[in-house]
Amino acid sequence: MINYPDGSKPKTTKKTTSKSKNITKSAANRGMALEKLISAANEYYLMNDMALFTKRPTPINVVKIDYDKGARITNAYFEKQSTTDFNGVYQNRYFDFEAKSTRLKTSFPLNNIYEHQIAHLENVIRHGGIAFFIVEFSAFDEYYVLSAADVIDFYHNGDRKSIPYETFKEKGVLIRLGLNPILDYLPAVIKLFNL
Amino acid sequence: MINYPDGSKPKTTKKTTSKSKNITKSAANRGMALEKLISAANEYYLMNDMALFTKRPTPINVVKIDYDKGARITNAYFEKQSTTDFNGVYQNRYFDFEAKSTRLKTSFPLNNIYEHQIAHLENVIRHGGIAFFIVEFSAFDEYYVLSAADVIDFYHNGDRKSIPYETFKEKGVLIRLGLNPILDYLPAVIKLFNL
Repeated sequence: MINYPDGSKPKTTKKTTSKSKNITKSAANRGMALEKLISAANEYYLMNDMALFTKRPTPINVVKIDYDKGARITNAYFEKQSTTDFNGVYQNRYFDFEAKSTRLKTSFPLNNIYEHQIAHLENVIRHGGIAFFIVEFSAFDEYYVLSAADVIDFYHNGDRKSIPYETFKEKGVLIRLGLNPILDYLPAVIKLFNL
Repeated sequence: MINYPDGSKPKTTKKTTSKSKNITKSAANRGMALEKLISAANEYYLMNDMALFTKRPTPINVVKIDYDKGARITNAYFEKQSTTDFNGVYQNRYFDFEAKSTRLKTSFPLNNIYEHQIAHLENVIRHGGIAFFIVEFSAFDEYYVLSAADVIDFYHNGDRKSIPYETFKEKGVLIRLGLNPILDYLPAVIKLFNL
């Protein structure tokens, strides 16, 4: 399959010039959860034979199943994610990443990252996986890829439990938004890790 | 890690002569689901810095959440797994595998492998991942690693929807059982794929 290193659009984006409506990128993004943007990109990468990334299902602890109703779950609760949301393979390499969004303009708070997730990402790095975060600054409609190693460094050594916005500009890579996929994050990861 | 190409038993099985009880390997395994044996091995590999493999949570479609009870799920159902049960990383490489058990003595039936899973494993192979099945023949207390490529070949081209037991002996690698972990499958995978 063809890569588009110049950022040119594949033919399938023609769909956007259809009569359906003149949707701007940021309007299209608004209200579309980060997770869905990533899943849409993953589908694009898979269809175009570029990479295979999948979302881990949300872990749920099932307490009760009603078999009279065809194995209907009637009592269950969400568990904390002990790993990350996404993983997969790009050119033999293992990828593992987490997506987070913040409305803040000055920093990305680390309080919604669990210690288990940090431990998991440390393990990924130790075994040679490509580990990173995709962080959305919704106030600016900006999305950054930042290495998990940098996040872990702030998590353990930072003065405060957040990463300054400036750090994303300095150490991360801004994801260039497109139309198909909107959140074309793979080139940013390739750039960040020199793949 | 050590391979046991001669098929000899590891010393650790000596435990069966301990005073705690005369538990044979197969008795110890019996009732312990294949998935738990794999998860126990995965924990061992992680603790010993050998590899990182995780189980994907079972996908559940949540229909109703009762927030009065602290986000208790009161209506949900299991979804078909569209990928596989396990994936992870070993020495940079992406691993993806499925575990299945059969009580049959002559063949492994393919009717409980979904088309989506086959498509997923084809994608894994195309992107350079290590894709395989761990298959238990419970009648013999034998566990084999067989490449997903071989399973896919039977799935698409086989005369019948099953893989003969003999094929596992010829093309697969028998997992040598130990005590910790009991199902030490990684050496068999390393051998099968010449890693």
